Amino acid sequence: MAPDYEVFELGDYRLQSGVVLPDARLAYQTYGELNAVRDNVVVYPTAYGGTHANCEPIIGAGLALDPSRYFIVVPNMFGNGLSSSPSNTPAPFSGPDFPGVTIHDMVQAQHRLLSERFGIERIRLVTGTSMGGLQAFEWGAAFPELVERIVPRCGAARCSPHNWVFLDGIEAALTADAAFAGGRYQEPPTNGLRAMGRVWAGWALSQAFYREERWRELGAESLADYLATNWGARPLDANDQLAMIWSWQHADISANAMYRGDFDQALAAIRARAIVMPSSTDLYFPPEDNAYEVARMPIAELRPFETVWGHLAGSPGPDPQDAAALDLALREILAA
Amino acid sequence: MAPDYEVFELGDYRLQSGVVLPDARLAYQTYGELNAVRDNVVVYPTAYGGTHANCEPIIGAGLALDPSRYFIVVPNMFGNGLSSSPSNTPAPFSGPDFPGVTIHDMVQAQHRLLSERFGIERIRLVTGTSMGGLQAFEWGAAFPELVERIVPRCGAARCSPHNWVFLDGIEAALTADAAFAGGRYQEPPTNGLRAMGRVWAGWALSQAFYREERWRELGAESLADYLATNWGARPLDANDQLAMIWSWQHADISANAMYRGDFDQALAAIRARAIVMPSSTDLYFPPEDNAYEVARMPIAELRPFETVWGHLAGSPGPDPQDAAALDLALREILAA
Repeated sequence: MAPDYEVFELGDYRLQSGVVLPDARLAYQTYGELNAVRDNVVVYPTAYGGTHANCEPIIGAGLALDPSRYFIVVPNMFGNGLSSSPSNTPAPFSGPDFPGVTIHDMVQAQHRLLSERFGIERIRLVTGTSMGGLQAFEWGAAFPELVERIVPRCGAARCSPHNWVFLDGIEAALTADAAFAGGRYQEPPTNGLRAMGRVWAGWALSQAFYREERWRELGAESLADYLATNWGARPLDANDQLAMIWSWQHADISANAMYRGDFDQALAAIRARAIVMPSSTDLYFPPEDNAYEVARMPIAELRPFETVWGHLAGSPGPDPQDAAALDLALREILAA
Repeated sequence: MAPDYEVFELGDYRLQSGVVLPDARLAYQTYGELNAVRDNVVVYPTAYGGTHANCEPIIGAGLALDPSRYFIVVPNMFGNGLSSSPSNTPAPFSGPDFPGVTIHDMVQAQHRLLSERFGIERIRLVTGTSMGGLQAFEWGAAFPELVERIVPRCGAARCSPHNWVFLDGIEAALTADAAFAGGRYQEPPTNGLRAMGRVWAGWALSQAFYREERWRELGAESLADYLATNWGARPLDANDQLAMIWSWQHADISANAMYRGDFDQALAAIRARAIVMPSSTDLYFPPEDNAYEVARMPIAELRPFETVWGHLAGSPGPDPQDAAALDLALREILAA
């Protein structure tokens, strides 16, 4: 079966760290057609552990992201197994030797895809959830003259210290499995991957989600059933996961030559109109961090999902209220 | 060096499960003197991973829990390594074969200590934090005619589903280490114990604690320093920790013959005057669960710690505001 995505060859791609990743590749998928004046572009970066396929539920006829109106580009994140990742990169950068790729690096590569392959010079909207939200903020700060609108969901403009600690715990659970072997495993470190999933289960959803047994809406018959079905070992390469965690932990729109660590300045430089959508019950991207950011962005509205779905509220997910809130926000900002 | 605690021999101790634990022992320490009418008793059960020594910072002259006025009994929890625990129980109940001990079982044993050894028939106050809070609620429900006051801190009358999931993740991190070997280890499963600590670091304190770098108040120079010093492998036996987690996960004041699962009835049966003290930023004992409970208890006040110290706010801890709020609450209720 042919892959359902295209690949943009980045060639020798220099990262912020100075490391040059040879034959770097950016996997992407597009939906709809680029119009003649090339002003109908939506960029929708992927989230942790997902691919373009995970973005598709909110792309479609009758939805805000309607491919009959917009040219929607979904670039796959480095480390997700389709774009350059530990699992698909040859030595000397394979597996645990894969270099750290920042969110800044990711967005610079995406910009090359848009400009070099499609000649795009204006972006109507960037939206994404979680790590896709990190990338949406980065787009706004890195290319203020290109990006007209951003809707980051359940993300932030940088990884907060608590978010870093949460990820550190997730990583510790994975690497507690001796089968991980410093990333030089032959077989997947199944116990570690399972532990990672079980730890994540408590973080990804809210206290109220579990209290109200909302997992029933996903078809689970019991809490044990829900955890086993949704929070076991992910079928994702362990080194790929650690590469994405590294990128996440190092996210900061000001950590580059353009802003030299001045976070407030980077926020103030975002010219895009923004609707920033945290989840009211997100345990690792709490609304307070977005409130700080919105207060420093020129044209930004803080519009939380009022939900019990925790961090998952921003994903194309099962809750109809969250989905409706997202579709409405996207419609409003696209019309603005 | 002689141990700084006493032991009450429970003999063959029948648990709720029906299992009889032979030669069960309850380690305890007392502070102050029992007065002639035996009405100056404070019971202060221990928390996860702690002993009577961890309770001592809020016991002392000039504090609410003043040993010159009160006879303060600190019973050590089963599983903590001093009272009967996997690590100190001989076969056939040693290590991973140690039976599940409920919070109900613990409090029944503590009641025997008080009545059989000291002839106590009235308890002025029961207070405790975290798993000590679970025990304070249990005391109120199991012995409504004995217990005059309770101050549960950062605890609840039962383990909520989200709290259960959090603990499941902690346990998964520990047992991901193959050295755990189903509990039949010769050497401690160091990687698993370390992972458990690192996962816990994100849960025990709030987003704001890390955002504001409040670890500086503990003398840490950096986040990495704080995590390494405070959240590495605890020097606690792995099976002991899993025994305590089992007790925690099964906590429910109504899970017994007295209330037969009717949680609201068990809450309504608590005759003690109560000040229930959640932390405003506790991620696994959130204030909402206490609000539900307080609304169903006859004489109860919900008084959250307004704090960034997360779950640790209820512990005899480093934050002077939290410590002052606790001391005030204890003074008020003891005077009532």
